[in-house]
Amino acid sequence: MRSIGIGIIGGGYMGKAHSVAMASVGAVFNTALRPRLEMIAATTPESAERYRAAYGFARATAEWRELVNDTLIEAIVIASPQELHREIALAAFAAGKPVLCEKPLGASLSDAIAMTEAAEKARLPNMVGFNYIRTPASQYARHLISSGAIGQVVWFRGEHTEDFDADATKPAAWRNQGMANGTMGDLAPHMINAALALIGPIATLVSDIDTVHKTRPSVDGPVTVTNDDQAQFLCRFANGAMGHLSFSRIATGRKMGYAYEITGTTGAIRFDQEDQNALWLYKSEGPAAERGFRKILTGPDHPDYLPFCQGPGHGTGYQDQIIIEARDFLTAIETGKPVWPTFRDGLAVMQVIDAAHRSHASKQWVTL
Amino acid sequence: MRSIGIGIIGGGYMGKAHSVAMASVGAVFNTALRPRLEMIAATTPESAERYRAAYGFARATAEWRELVNDTLIEAIVIASPQELHREIALAAFAAGKPVLCEKPLGASLSDAIAMTEAAEKARLPNMVGFNYIRTPASQYARHLISSGAIGQVVWFRGEHTEDFDADATKPAAWRNQGMANGTMGDLAPHMINAALALIGPIATLVSDIDTVHKTRPSVDGPVTVTNDDQAQFLCRFANGAMGHLSFSRIATGRKMGYAYEITGTTGAIRFDQEDQNALWLYKSEGPAAERGFRKILTGPDHPDYLPFCQGPGHGTGYQDQIIIEARDFLTAIETGKPVWPTFRDGLAVMQVIDAAHRSHASKQWVTL
Amino acid sequence: MRSIGIGIIGGGYMGKAHSVAMASVGAVFNTALRPRLEMIAATTPESAERYRAAYGFARATAEWRELVNDTLIEAIVIASPQELHREIALAAFAAGKPVLCEKPLGASLSDAIAMTEAAEKARLPNMVGFNYIRTPASQYARHLISSGAIGQVVWFRGEHTEDFDADATKPAAWRNQGMANGTMGDLAPHMINAALALIGPIATLVSDIDTVHKTRPSVDGPVTVTNDDQAQFLCRFANGAMGHLSFSRIATGRKMGYAYEITGTTGAIRFDQEDQNALWLYKSEGPAAERGFRKILTGPDHPDYLPFCQGPGHGTGYQDQIIIEARDFLTAIETGKPVWPTFRDGLAVMQVIDAAHRSHASKQWVTL
Amino acid sequence: MRSIGIGIIGGGYMGKAHSVAMASVGAVFNTALRPRLEMIAATTPESAERYRAAYGFARATAEWRELVNDTLIEAIVIASPQELHREIALAAFAAGKPVLCEKPLGASLSDAIAMTEAAEKARLPNMVGFNYIRTPASQYARHLISSGAIGQVVWFRGEHTEDFDADATKPAAWRNQGMANGTMGDLAPHMINAALALIGPIATLVSDIDTVHKTRPSVDGPVTVTNDDQAQFLCRFANGAMGHLSFSRIATGRKMGYAYEITGTTGAIRFDQEDQNALWLYKSEGPAAERGFRKILTGPDHPDYLPFCQGPGHGTGYQDQIIIEARDFLTAIETGKPVWPTFRDGLAVMQVIDAAHRSHASKQWVTL
Repeated sequence: MRSIGIGIIGGGYMGKAHSVAMASVGAVFNTALRPRLEMIAATTPESAERYRAAYGFARATAEWRELVNDTLIEAIVIASPQELHREIALAAFAAGKPVLCEKPLGASLSDAIAMTEAAEKARLPNMVGFNYIRTPASQYARHLISSGAIGQVVWFRGEHTEDFDADATKPAAWRNQGMANGTMGDLAPHMINAALALIGPIATLVSDIDTVHKTRPSVDGPVTVTNDDQAQFLCRFANGAMGHLSFSRIATGRKMGYAYEITGTTGAIRFDQEDQNALWLYKSEGPAAERGFRKILTGPDHPDYLPFCQGPGHGTGYQDQIIIEARDFLTAIETGKPVWPTFRDGLAVMQVIDAAHRSHASKQWVTL
Repeated sequence: MRSIGIGIIGGGYMGKAHSVAMASVGAVFNTALRPRLEMIAATTPESAERYRAAYGFARATAEWRELVNDTLIEAIVIASPQELHREIALAAFAAGKPVLCEKPLGASLSDAIAMTEAAEKARLPNMVGFNYIRTPASQYARHLISSGAIGQVVWFRGEHTEDFDADATKPAAWRNQGMANGTMGDLAPHMINAALALIGPIATLVSDIDTVHKTRPSVDGPVTVTNDDQAQFLCRFANGAMGHLSFSRIATGRKMGYAYEITGTTGAIRFDQEDQNALWLYKSEGPAAERGFRKILTGPDHPDYLPFCQGPGHGTGYQDQIIIEARDFLTAIETGKPVWPTFRDGLAVMQVIDAAHRSHASKQWVTL
Repeated sequence: MRSIGIGIIGGGYMGKAHSVAMASVGAVFNTALRPRLEMIAATTPESAERYRAAYGFARATAEWRELVNDTLIEAIVIASPQELHREIALAAFAAGKPVLCEKPLGASLSDAIAMTEAAEKARLPNMVGFNYIRTPASQYARHLISSGAIGQVVWFRGEHTEDFDADATKPAAWRNQGMANGTMGDLAPHMINAALALIGPIATLVSDIDTVHKTRPSVDGPVTVTNDDQAQFLCRFANGAMGHLSFSRIATGRKMGYAYEITGTTGAIRFDQEDQNALWLYKSEGPAAERGFRKILTGPDHPDYLPFCQGPGHGTGYQDQIIIEARDFLTAIETGKPVWPTFRDGLAVMQVIDAAHRSHASKQWVTL
Repeated sequence: MRSIGIGIIGGGYMGKAHSVAMASVGAVFNTALRPRLEMIAATTPESAERYRAAYGFARATAEWRELVNDTLIEAIVIASPQELHREIALAAFAAGKPVLCEKPLGASLSDAIAMTEAAEKARLPNMVGFNYIRTPASQYARHLISSGAIGQVVWFRGEHTEDFDADATKPAAWRNQGMANGTMGDLAPHMINAALALIGPIATLVSDIDTVHKTRPSVDGPVTVTNDDQAQFLCRFANGAMGHLSFSRIATGRKMGYAYEITGTTGAIRFDQEDQNALWLYKSEGPAAERGFRKILTGPDHPDYLPFCQGPGHGTGYQDQIIIEARDFLTAIETGKPVWPTFRDGLAVMQVIDAAHRSHASKQWVTL
């Protein structure tokens, strides 16, 4: 066991989540590397200091480059706005430091390509923060599919739907500007990553992308919304399975609609993040009169649950996903080997998003 | 109150359902017209007589034309294979008799056009048997949407999925031959009708259609399946709402997956026929901390429930939908006016199916 | 196949249900005996005639004795207020006619005893109208338990809860007067019958009975409520299983809370009438990671479902239970043998209710 | 903000949970007091050292008295077997140190009395580890009830059911010996605490307690089980509400059945820990046709959720409850004031358990 100096860039929503995760991952997983909250970077000296004190870091800075180059920092978590992901990641690799980057992998496909190339050239641990796929339920779903428990997959439907922008009178904000902050840029990556992980590569798709609330109020009058409120695409996976993915930030009533249903030739799986401790499984076995979707409550028999609790059905939560992610990042550093999902996996997600934008623009099926 | 002679063509699945409905609709709804089970037609004299005795008809025939032209028959229900819908309907209208035709409205778009033209030219009551939309829950969903309870609709997702053909080793049958008997022909009409009824006309769509099990066993060796196992399309409704519809007969675990979710700007609705006595409603009102999808159990406050039971939550079932349909057909005859859904409504459904086939063939978005 | 003349006494809620059932049972089940709606009796000539016309009976009467003694009446359904059950049943048996009596079996234990003795002395078909236990789901639950699918039963919890009297401002009505019309008298019988059918005889119990709304408004001022709003008891079944039953007419939010959960040593069952087409089954078999309550949708593989519909998950409803009941009654008549649940079964229910009242009065455990 | 030295006695299930909580509570809640993992005590030097290393404590000991009296230890968490709770707590108070004691409060009523007297005499912060009541959902349920959102409570049903001992062939273990380790001793406290917190004091009860598996196998042959597998009681609360509580460790299929349903005169609440991020609320308001239980997903609008995540529906888990508990304990220490639930609250729970045992022994209703 040895201490490792962690630097986190960004102290907001995800910066806090990663800070808490780094504070607790050692006790939860008995990791060989024990994070030391060395430095946090934020936009201003005041905010950085506030985050430092709140989360328990040793030092704070308003200059992320200072953090990247600090000799006590041995690993970096990027939780900044996505427009900065590329520049920070490249600087971190240049400084020889492993990087855990929040999704999406940059603000554009070209960002993702540059970041992936830099990571692979540097041969340094690199990981993308797709936390939702790390629930015990979704990890077990992957296992079920890959072990053939539901036969050959013929259908996948996934969605990531929330309703934080459903109210048309909600004032314009940063989320309403720039493709990287729209529904395709911000929400789609999680579910596309899930689709790729659960089913495999996407071969072709045809998409539709929509901005429902075309302006939003502001103190200076109506502001034009420049990105999308909802989007969807039909696809075929490389293995022939038919797929549908949809995304929305205006899905009234949906709070965390990261959900999928997977049909195989001998079984089916359903999952909804709003009840993240349950996985629904149907198997075409036993008497027909006794068949049905069973609600499996996650527990010690499912991946990564036991370190959180010995009792099944007691449940893990959002923060625990980030702790699992931190464990994986530490493992990558300890072993010197990339751990899924790497930047290359994040790039694959960006390629799908790019294809969806192209399909919408051309009104054509697009081949990846 | 007066008696009306009913003739039903077809004694199988739907023929029985309509027979039972005609036997009970009077007592349930206290209708002005009281059905008299006058004659049933089936393929052979033996089967016709068997159905006659079982369901309680006065007479039986193996010649549907005999039934159509019988002077005691005042109204006709077509529950035959869909390849016969057109010929029978045209003969019935020629004989001056009202027709309730099972879905789909014929085996092709041209059938539907001919049948609709004949019905309208004859100025006779005509109706298509879209029974699922008649549950108290779905009727109430229509009411909620049209009364503005969920604001402007921005998203519709509907499916009709079952798993009766999920087993790849199931022998080839009539369902596996001919487009009219595939998933798009057989299952899609119900949900497309729902989409049109709940949201309005579809403006454009792009589809994908798939045959997963390309051959099926038979006593004579493998038989090529000539129609589709699963299908889906993206669409835009004329009112701008984004839509997705999917259909499957290989949806392992799904028994009666006639289900939809509708997002409005101020609310949302969810329904699944597998729990047909519940309607889920979300409204963006009241304290945020108290908002959630509510599970409304149908009862006397919902359309057409009360005649079946005075207690809410006691539930209606499949057969009751056919009874409601029978009531509507009798009303159409009594008043001499077409009652929704007429042949023209059934034609609209066939036009969407046709567009989906064309889109799949051309790999293009199609405008209706 | 032959016609049988049916007389129904009472044209309200249950009278209508039985009328509709008698009108459709033949077509549904292809019964050997085919009901002929011969006569309906109600309180006044006007109401009787109204019911006659609505439900399709041949004749009407305001004198139930006339119906009982009519030579064309071959079987009698008692759907009158429960205070009349005894007198009518005794007269019917005296006239040599089979009786289907709505629950409860009379207004008191002594009624039930007298009715059972009369039935058995007359050696005539007799049945009590416990309709809810006849859903395909509950019938299948009985089968699962008796076939050992969940091992030895150690726990039963049942409830029959509704909320029709939850509103304290609802005016006083007949339901609020007389023990036979209280929660124990009116709602408890259904679930006690279920408990006895599913688990077996109750050996001991201790109860608590409660009137929450002690007066109710009327046009003449407050009226004292003389029966119970909610009640419950602990019990031990003769086989040692622990039990709990509860009943309420003030269970806010509950519409048809006829629900039970049964724990066995190797499995468990859950059912709720509000979703009557689903049965939840857990079995302690297979990998622990794949265990969970499965939601079985009723279908052709479950008792008495197929005659209503060939497709699983399409669902039966309240009225269908009464049709199954009618089928059983016709079978009893056809075979000349009592069919479960007979008056003796109804008497067993009344004995439990009586024990619960005595336990509440004495504040003691009572042995049956 | 200042550091506070924490000592935890016990390194197993709950010892780990409290260790993780103390490691992360500062970053989550930005607490004024920041825990320093100073020392952990366990049964042997080896196990203590193993826990120390795993959880990140500075020191370890096999002598809990050493920990209690260590000058760097400023607060103590008791996570030892319950037979030791009393002795440790008394020593801790004697040493002037605040105590967070795991439930139950000792192994007997006399333990609880002694511990409560010691705590109050010492005037030191004292708290019992009833973690489940601290979910955002259950905290919000308390708020709803106390604010009158469901009117006057008339009914409470609570259960704490699991199935870890359902398998009759599971070998005998410490859990099968001693009343404090039976279902009433081990599982009941959580739900009794919930009942008291949600509804208020219990006035009278009548119970039944059962040992289903009377022996269990061991390497030395069958061992007699000396405590209970399942138990239940009827009760009346001081406010007149009727209640039922049940507990089981053999509830096949139940993994974390800490569940309650509460009926009020104008609303109702349902909760099940197996889906801990949802609270079901029914309100008797609005059109009858739109009423139903709504599934509220917990989020930033519910107590103590926001520090874990900004997004509603993203979910908290088991470990988060312990973190909330740690926050409360730190608050008690910071302010010098007891924070609910104190030892006195834990004593109230033990009094109910004692009454249930007495009722079962005497077969009588018992007044508290």
